[in-house]
Amino acid sequence: MSQTRAQRVVLASRPRGAPTVSDFRLEEGPIPEPGEGQVLLRVALLSLDPYMRGRMDAGPSYARPVEVGEVMEGGTAAVVDASRHPGFAVGDVVLSHSGWQTHALSDGKGLRRLDPTAAPVSTALGVLGMPGFTAYVGLTEIGRPAPGETVVVAAASGAVGSVVGQIARIRGARAVGIAGGERKCTFVKSELLFDAAVDHRAPDFAQRLAEACPKGVDVYFENVGGAVLDAVVPLLNDFARIPVCGLISQYNAVGPFPGPDRLPLTLRQVLTKSLTLRGFIQREFAPLRPTFEREMRGWLAKGQVRYREDVVEGLERAPEAFMGLLEGKNFGKLLVRVSPL
Amino acid sequence: MSQTRAQRVVLASRPRGAPTVSDFRLEEGPIPEPGEGQVLLRVALLSLDPYMRGRMDAGPSYARPVEVGEVMEGGTAAVVDASRHPGFAVGDVVLSHSGWQTHALSDGKGLRRLDPTAAPVSTALGVLGMPGFTAYVGLTEIGRPAPGETVVVAAASGAVGSVVGQIARIRGARAVGIAGGERKCTFVKSELLFDAAVDHRAPDFAQRLAEACPKGVDVYFENVGGAVLDAVVPLLNDFARIPVCGLISQYNAVGPFPGPDRLPLTLRQVLTKSLTLRGFIQREFAPLRPTFEREMRGWLAKGQVRYREDVVEGLERAPEAFMGLLEGKNFGKLLVRVSPL
Repeated sequence: MSQTRAQRVVLASRPRGAPTVSDFRLEEGPIPEPGEGQVLLRVALLSLDPYMRGRMDAGPSYARPVEVGEVMEGGTAAVVDASRHPGFAVGDVVLSHSGWQTHALSDGKGLRRLDPTAAPVSTALGVLGMPGFTAYVGLTEIGRPAPGETVVVAAASGAVGSVVGQIARIRGARAVGIAGGERKCTFVKSELLFDAAVDHRAPDFAQRLAEACPKGVDVYFENVGGAVLDAVVPLLNDFARIPVCGLISQYNAVGPFPGPDRLPLTLRQVLTKSLTLRGFIQREFAPLRPTFEREMRGWLAKGQVRYREDVVEGLERAPEAFMGLLEGKNFGKLLVRVSPL
Repeated sequence: MSQTRAQRVVLASRPRGAPTVSDFRLEEGPIPEPGEGQVLLRVALLSLDPYMRGRMDAGPSYARPVEVGEVMEGGTAAVVDASRHPGFAVGDVVLSHSGWQTHALSDGKGLRRLDPTAAPVSTALGVLGMPGFTAYVGLTEIGRPAPGETVVVAAASGAVGSVVGQIARIRGARAVGIAGGERKCTFVKSELLFDAAVDHRAPDFAQRLAEACPKGVDVYFENVGGAVLDAVVPLLNDFARIPVCGLISQYNAVGPFPGPDRLPLTLRQVLTKSLTLRGFIQREFAPLRPTFEREMRGWLAKGQVRYREDVVEGLERAPEAFMGLLEGKNFGKLLVRVSPL
């Protein structure tokens, strides 16, 4: 990567179905110069997260879409390379939302200074950042597992799911993770110390899941939808809670969806079991962020929460890594190292 | 009806799809005699409610099914015709769960004495009874409309829906009812004083509903499912609440349901709008029953809640009336007058 030129990845076209390389375009240009009151940020780490797939589509969602030709959005850890802002000095490390690019200007709004000596900078994009907070509020505010209850989490080796299961255990619940493939399942069980891990690729997945949940399921933390949801629903206990955090299995799908229609039977379960389904975005719970950070720092210090990162080198590899994320190819929190810290 | 013989309607066979007359059987026998500690109840009014369809099916639900050959279950208002129980005297009027029959024995458990001078006895099966309480807890505990919010209720002229909309208005919300046919819609608007009523049989139903909800929908009280739900979902505002009380449109359906699969798009709305879907049965909220009754008596006294009853004469007509209920043929709370009070 040239140090004298800025690079950025823009949305070249809206994908129909799964994104392809042609939906992204790497552009180069001069490194911008900060105006009065601005800082120049050099992006060090870019977080890749499933929600970004939604931003590539037009139409209403919980956030405005990325327009064709615009830089792909994303959370970043960045270094202040030049400053004409009284609040920031060259060398400061900040959490920003600079997107898929090597450099960005900022007026300082929304920037948050990070202390690289307190915690690895990457954790501000993972376990201590948006994904960790998503897991925390979804589980504790919506899922609300009681001690002894069973919590099932999909995408259990991922940035959010891994934290969900570990907090569930801290709260005294039984944590059952669902992941794709034996390697991830072994990690979920041996490293993250979930009570059980079930491979959704196994031909007898539904039966294995049932065996891993002998007392049924009280909380299902939904990240994926599709066949995994279908396997969980029959196991749900009365009054079970389903925080709906993501639906990665259907982000690339192009409707109308072929039958049979699964909605009537799902609603019947909602009715007869007094289920709660609750979609959420973490920012709804922003006032809880300080509490989360205090608790999470404590858990990390005691080794009660562990995490794994999957770091890809170079901004130009972001599209490929993101496409892999949507297929479950990453193993742990997916990050792109854009430049050295 | 013979006064010297008891009659009862039993489940003759489990329906596949819509119940037919052959799924019920009218049986006659001697009027039973109370043993020591028992009362003989003569049923005066039988409540017919959609939940009974679920009891006709085998398989798990929130209550045990009626077995083939057993009396159909149901809430009743009854008169004590003979008593060998110290707590009840001949002539007492009670709320009981005696089912589809003219006479029943009871040991007094679960009976509740009614004061026919305080309120019409029929209201104990309707606006002051299970349907009214269902409306109350579903709206106030799950729907929780804020003043100025829009509440949409399906089956708005029915026993539950009619109460939902009227309480919504009392709480300062905008009440929009959905009902089948112009007569019911006129009733909902002119008699129940909902802000708007929309006929789900109208060819432009979805558009009319959208026009009746210019600020979107904050609470959708779900009684029906199906096409009505599909019309409401796109109108839901962020953080909308959907108490799932019933799904009458699909009770008679026989799966698998033909496509397209409506679940992915529905879940997408749950996710992107942070919706809450919550199934419930009123008994979960039993501790609120006294509060409900106090409030409802006040509303009735002030004319703030009105109700309409659809009374069918004779136990032998219960099957036909019940089959009509599942098709929306009733107009108001459906009751069977089994014998004079």
